Amino acid sequence: MEQLKVGIIGLGRIGKIHAKNLIALADVALIMASDPDPQARDFATALGIPAVVEGFDPIFSNPDIEAVVICSPTDTHFECIEKAAAAGQHIFCEKPLDMTVEAIEKIVEIVTEAKVKLQVGFNRRFDVHFARIRSLVEAGAVGETHILKITSRDPGPPPISYIERSGGLFLDMTIHDFDMARFIVGSEVKEVFAIGRVRVDQAIGAAGDVDTAIVNLTFEDGTIATIDNSRKASYGYDQRLEIFGSKGMAHIGNQQADSHTVYNADGIHQPVLLDFFLERYEQAYQREIQDFVAAIRAGKSVPVDAHDALMATKIGMAAWRSVKENRPVALSEI
Amino acid sequence: MEQLKVGIIGLGRIGKIHAKNLIALADVALIMASDPDPQARDFATALGIPAVVEGFDPIFSNPDIEAVVICSPTDTHFECIEKAAAAGQHIFCEKPLDMTVEAIEKIVEIVTEAKVKLQVGFNRRFDVHFARIRSLVEAGAVGETHILKITSRDPGPPPISYIERSGGLFLDMTIHDFDMARFIVGSEVKEVFAIGRVRVDQAIGAAGDVDTAIVNLTFEDGTIATIDNSRKASYGYDQRLEIFGSKGMAHIGNQQADSHTVYNADGIHQPVLLDFFLERYEQAYQREIQDFVAAIRAGKSVPVDAHDALMATKIGMAAWRSVKENRPVALSEI
Amino acid sequence: MEQLKVGIIGLGRIGKIHAKNLIALADVALIMASDPDPQARDFATALGIPAVVEGFDPIFSNPDIEAVVICSPTDTHFECIEKAAAAGQHIFCEKPLDMTVEAIEKIVEIVTEAKVKLQVGFNRRFDVHFARIRSLVEAGAVGETHILKITSRDPGPPPISYIERSGGLFLDMTIHDFDMARFIVGSEVKEVFAIGRVRVDQAIGAAGDVDTAIVNLTFEDGTIATIDNSRKASYGYDQRLEIFGSKGMAHIGNQQADSHTVYNADGIHQPVLLDFFLERYEQAYQREIQDFVAAIRAGKSVPVDAHDALMATKIGMAAWRSVKENRPVALSEI
Amino acid sequence: MEQLKVGIIGLGRIGKIHAKNLIALADVALIMASDPDPQARDFATALGIPAVVEGFDPIFSNPDIEAVVICSPTDTHFECIEKAAAAGQHIFCEKPLDMTVEAIEKIVEIVTEAKVKLQVGFNRRFDVHFARIRSLVEAGAVGETHILKITSRDPGPPPISYIERSGGLFLDMTIHDFDMARFIVGSEVKEVFAIGRVRVDQAIGAAGDVDTAIVNLTFEDGTIATIDNSRKASYGYDQRLEIFGSKGMAHIGNQQADSHTVYNADGIHQPVLLDFFLERYEQAYQREIQDFVAAIRAGKSVPVDAHDALMATKIGMAAWRSVKENRPVALSEI
Repeated sequence: MEQLKVGIIGLGRIGKIHAKNLIALADVALIMASDPDPQARDFATALGIPAVVEGFDPIFSNPDIEAVVICSPTDTHFECIEKAAAAGQHIFCEKPLDMTVEAIEKIVEIVTEAKVKLQVGFNRRFDVHFARIRSLVEAGAVGETHILKITSRDPGPPPISYIERSGGLFLDMTIHDFDMARFIVGSEVKEVFAIGRVRVDQAIGAAGDVDTAIVNLTFEDGTIATIDNSRKASYGYDQRLEIFGSKGMAHIGNQQADSHTVYNADGIHQPVLLDFFLERYEQAYQREIQDFVAAIRAGKSVPVDAHDALMATKIGMAAWRSVKENRPVALSEI
Repeated sequence: MEQLKVGIIGLGRIGKIHAKNLIALADVALIMASDPDPQARDFATALGIPAVVEGFDPIFSNPDIEAVVICSPTDTHFECIEKAAAAGQHIFCEKPLDMTVEAIEKIVEIVTEAKVKLQVGFNRRFDVHFARIRSLVEAGAVGETHILKITSRDPGPPPISYIERSGGLFLDMTIHDFDMARFIVGSEVKEVFAIGRVRVDQAIGAAGDVDTAIVNLTFEDGTIATIDNSRKASYGYDQRLEIFGSKGMAHIGNQQADSHTVYNADGIHQPVLLDFFLERYEQAYQREIQDFVAAIRAGKSVPVDAHDALMATKIGMAAWRSVKENRPVALSEI
Repeated sequence: MEQLKVGIIGLGRIGKIHAKNLIALADVALIMASDPDPQARDFATALGIPAVVEGFDPIFSNPDIEAVVICSPTDTHFECIEKAAAAGQHIFCEKPLDMTVEAIEKIVEIVTEAKVKLQVGFNRRFDVHFARIRSLVEAGAVGETHILKITSRDPGPPPISYIERSGGLFLDMTIHDFDMARFIVGSEVKEVFAIGRVRVDQAIGAAGDVDTAIVNLTFEDGTIATIDNSRKASYGYDQRLEIFGSKGMAHIGNQQADSHTVYNADGIHQPVLLDFFLERYEQAYQREIQDFVAAIRAGKSVPVDAHDALMATKIGMAAWRSVKENRPVALSEI
Repeated sequence: MEQLKVGIIGLGRIGKIHAKNLIALADVALIMASDPDPQARDFATALGIPAVVEGFDPIFSNPDIEAVVICSPTDTHFECIEKAAAAGQHIFCEKPLDMTVEAIEKIVEIVTEAKVKLQVGFNRRFDVHFARIRSLVEAGAVGETHILKITSRDPGPPPISYIERSGGLFLDMTIHDFDMARFIVGSEVKEVFAIGRVRVDQAIGAAGDVDTAIVNLTFEDGTIATIDNSRKASYGYDQRLEIFGSKGMAHIGNQQADSHTVYNADGIHQPVLLDFFLERYEQAYQREIQDFVAAIRAGKSVPVDAHDALMATKIGMAAWRSVKENRPVALSEI
């Protein structure tokens, strides 16, 4: 079998993970990597990537490259997507595609016209646990879906400098839950009501963000959802979901580094949760790239695309407006 | 020790439970029972209650009776409370005290002036599991409270005839969760946002009620809460709560009739949840009456009073207005 | 319905529990109690038992008494049973019936000839959890039974003075597990191999007993079992059982006073187990007396009888011989 | 860093796993593979192993090879170890090292004299869950160890042809539990008592083996252990362990492919356990090879060596003698 020839743009924390996962795939040849940082380029060379360059353009001008994996900063995504599409290269792009709804709408247009596939890095859909819940819902195990509950709490807040450019909680963190909600329910969101508070760190509030939130969604199919978030859970990365319907409920709890229990005179004890997304979703990162490659090979749709990014972003925008105006906001307003 | 002399009014389903629990208390003498139904009076006689009457007035005119337990229909509560207070009798009254905020405000006045204690039957506060969560919160185990989550789902809907007179989901069912929320957080509710849907049975909608709901509460101390309800959970009576704060989280799960697990080729299986409130809260009913008697004996405040009933009712009213106007409703509007 | 007239002999810790449980039964009249200790007699009077006597004989000579509950010291059991049987009274007797196999065999004879029922106080059979496992086995949920595992560990050792008269670990503690094993498997034990160690307290060894043990049983139907015991589990009263067979496994875990979980930076925590048998088997004590009364009323066999006591005692004797001779001991040797 | 040059002998099911895990290590060069089967050699070539040969000798005569991984049939282990030791190559050898105690004793001698390291493939020690229990015991979390319980049940029996050459249950399956018991307790076994039955398949009995067993171990430090085994657990690969001591208990339960729970009218359901050792111990296989390589690089002892293989084999032999003679067998008898 001919290997799919892939280039990677950006070798930061998440780019390094994708590079390793690509190299581990027998049917992929990662033939070029690009990063302005010399240390990142050294990493790529050590991995055995044959061509390692500083700027992005050699990737788009290389006629051998069939697909690109974009892990560069968010403000470069649009330009990279535009050039890759012009070069006829399929695209895997990390989230968020862009900070504005308008740009993402334009991206949908560009990739549609260029007839290239674009997969967006909503990695949680590829987690074996959450994916199993989706397949249970599709199989009718819970009947008609009535109530969705998602708990998503980080072990600690990101730096304020990140928060200042990230779009805030609803666009850098809850956006994963918005995508998960659409994925699990299989229907579109009609309206959003959000409550946001600053409870963890006043500096987060000073940066214009919130750190503690509840967001309700109503779906076109009648399902209602409640999501709760915190920037700081003392006990680790808390990722749970339950979907309740006419026939029953399906639930996913948390994962731990190891599953031991100690019983002593103080009680019964288990270890804290896995620390954060790189550990919790390690296998999901592997699966999303495998599925991207498989979709290209099979000439099929990618499992999560620019439209999904658009919808999650719109929900995030609606959540912010809801907090600011203290009222439910219809998605059609965005 | 002198026994406390008690009379009971109304021997329907819940009255029978209270009668049995009173008789089991060594420091109580249940000396009179009243019910218009001859079968209920036969039940009382068989229990060994010395005086069993048809109308309510003999209870209030009996100078030996120190306390009354009111389990008659809701529309008789106000009159019974008024008469008991006039007779200087302490009062345990089943929920709801009354269907209107005005009447409950009047009740607060009446019992305050008469200097009698009035305890309202919010039984869940006396459940050992939920009470433990409250004591953990008070002890600071979760730090400052940030997010409260309550799931409360019934195994099946009540008759439509009940729904027509009950005040609907937020006043007959969620009202318990509203009281629980105030109890656990220890702060007052400022604002309510509710989403209600008819998903279980269209007849419920035709009766003007909803059967599936999410309610958000914001508290004066900054805590935010989300409650989800359904009239029908296929797997039994689902009663869970978690409180999340700066130091961690405390959680209570469900109870089962027995805790066996079967492992077979189809998977790992446990039995459904306890069917409903009489089983799930059997011991809570015992403890609430014990605590009522103990408060009278000790001359102390009852653990849950008419003010608590008033606040829970106001939250329920606000939830209904929120659903009808699709906006957050401040408690001060009620 | 005519009430069954019952007398109770011995009002120590367990006698008090039985007395209260008898009084709570509507179809029982506890008409006489006997205890040499004045404080115990005061307790009986306060409970409202009409006749309270010092010696045992007035119980047996009272022609109204249809059944006796014997909770006096073990060395009085034989005489009490003999006299009750002579009086035609049905008998509930606490375990152990007697310390010797010969006496228990004689008891089997006596009650058979007198045609009175004798139920022995193996309370755990009446625990809703263990009873459920038995009914699952009977219903074929695990198929043919292959392996039984019982863990039974006390929260702390009894006084040395108790151990000196109790027959030791296998006869005062494991005897419950031997009865449970026969109950769950539904077959007779053929052979016993036991390992006993002194690990908790050297004084226990000095008294001729062991405090830590593993006992294997082989059953006539081919099932094999392993039981492990300790006199001291730091985390509470540990009572678990699993039965494994051709179709799967059924399992019962422990019970806690309340089922809360706390998550914090140190991990995930639950409270210790229920402290000891009076709490853990509170409802089992109620059910065993109910079932005794029901068997008498229905003229049916009692659920656990002198033969069961005999077999459990023989297994205990075999376990001791196995430890002393370090070899498997056939039950037929006892 | 210079890569460690490794050769692999035998590319059956487990050899393929080791080959892949070796290739994934950045500090290892897998430079030669040997297998008599042409398909296995094609697999090796496809993996990119530079030299792929039919016979074993080219591995031992290759002066570049610093370490060998032996995955060939058991009856070739001795010869391979002898030749590798003569060549000064460090050795990782799959279990069992050999079928006789004498040969393993000879192996201990050979590798000691040749001053090469020999690690044996007791993969379970490298499972993160079991390793965590060992570190808890070492840290004193359970105090003095009193009782060890291991449950180890396979999802289905191996072919009869395998059983005929494997040494039977105690040497092909329980041997892992014997090694685990020594690893967790950190003391040597003194005596073994075993009960073996044929309950799963009469053909297993006809082949001279048992399929259902309980084995008790007594340790020099006073700890006692009970292990239960079955060749066929309908619900998957059951691998549990608990260690109980003066301060408490540490426990490891099972792992599932995904951790979802479904609640419906029939009860609460989770999926079956991971099917078998290749899935359950996938990461343990990776870690054992990493630790082997790390021990060579650091010039330190390997974590599990020929002496460990010898002891586990002796315990297995004692278990067989115990079953045949129905008595406890001292390890010193073997």
